[in-house]
Amino acid sequence: MTQNIYDNAGFFAGYAQLRRSVDGLDGAPEWPTLKSMLPDLTGKRVVDLGCGFGWFCRWARGAGAAEVLGLDVSANMLTRARETTSDPAIAYRQADLETLELPPASFDLAYSSLTLHYLEQLGRLFAAVHRGLAPGGRFVFSAEHPLYTETGPDYLDEGPRATDWLAKGVVKQHRTLATTLNLLIAAGFSVQRVEEWGPTREEIAAHPEWKIDHRRPSFLLVSATR
Amino acid sequence: MTQNIYDNAGFFAGYAQLRRSVDGLDGAPEWPTLKSMLPDLTGKRVVDLGCGFGWFCRWARGAGAAEVLGLDVSANMLTRARETTSDPAIAYRQADLETLELPPASFDLAYSSLTLHYLEQLGRLFAAVHRGLAPGGRFVFSAEHPLYTETGPDYLDEGPRATDWLAKGVVKQHRTLATTLNLLIAAGFSVQRVEEWGPTREEIAAHPEWKIDHRRPSFLLVSATR
Repeated sequence: MTQNIYDNAGFFAGYAQLRRSVDGLDGAPEWPTLKSMLPDLTGKRVVDLGCGFGWFCRWARGAGAAEVLGLDVSANMLTRARETTSDPAIAYRQADLETLELPPASFDLAYSSLTLHYLEQLGRLFAAVHRGLAPGGRFVFSAEHPLYTETGPDYLDEGPRATDWLAKGVVKQHRTLATTLNLLIAAGFSVQRVEEWGPTREEIAAHPEWKIDHRRPSFLLVSATR
Repeated sequence: MTQNIYDNAGFFAGYAQLRRSVDGLDGAPEWPTLKSMLPDLTGKRVVDLGCGFGWFCRWARGAGAAEVLGLDVSANMLTRARETTSDPAIAYRQADLETLELPPASFDLAYSSLTLHYLEQLGRLFAAVHRGLAPGGRFVFSAEHPLYTETGPDYLDEGPRATDWLAKGVVKQHRTLATTLNLLIAAGFSVQRVEEWGPTREEIAAHPEWKIDHRRPSFLLVSATR
């Protein structure tokens, strides 16, 4: 199993205070772009890979999804997620995405926000997601952009990167953008749209807290079709 | 028409001395990877967008292509290309890729090496290539990687970049990797493989002339299907 940093008490306490944890989707600057990459959810079966506090699961129901399954490796996260809803069409389940299997063709949308950069076996998960989607199903995800995860000058050297973010020694997997796309294609997906998200100059002016030294992308957003 | 730097005498003299100009494909370190992305050429109709001295056109014929059309904006280049072959199945023609149109469904492979980063209207060219390919046709190209073209800290700010390479003020167009892929998809292509090419540590050790300060990719290689 991959490092489950979200059940580290110090990390969790810090994470729970992030703007995206307190304000949900509207606290995530990349959400408007990611939302624009989603299909119409009316009547759809949705699985959220790394659902955290369940903000997206609840939003998906509000957007018309028929049923939503939120998966997360963190017991802390799932406890909080379950406390926030009594909707019987939303289910939360603990799952390790390194070994996840889904019932065949059982979902219309697989969604994942800022989770995949923790995984060692990304190609394995992509294949499992492909099997779990119905024909024509969509896979929309965000992950840290490799220019963000890669803290040194070695973009082309893939592998684990340990960073101190909310806790010491948080391990993320650095992969080039090409590797992520080629793993998707090898799993059978057709790439529909790729976004390298970073704040615009106007957004940096309006949100001083997003200030960065240069305009390099923070997040990779991808939409693919089964 | 885009800047035609190849008909600048100083630039051309310098370019003609590059290893890839003297030794052809074998002098281009990214060629083995690019070659591995090509389909079987037996009996295929091939167009080379930015053919330069015609190294690839002659190679394609040797690899079994039925006919090859080499296009370039540079009269200097085409003169040299025509001098190197008497093969009646290879034709060279001067063309501006900013305004190029091809006969519909008339090629099985469109190829382009290190040319597209000069173009302002890349989406227009992609659409023209899509129309010019037969169903199932392939488009394989290399271009400067945006991390290479982009000389400052502003990866996300797209637009022209003037560099001094063989001549002063050579203008290249900086686009993010996402933009190039989204333009391909918008033109109707299905992305098959993406490579961010840079020398391996072993290659840098074996070829001191490839020495770079850090392992950032030099070239973007893409294979797509119509």
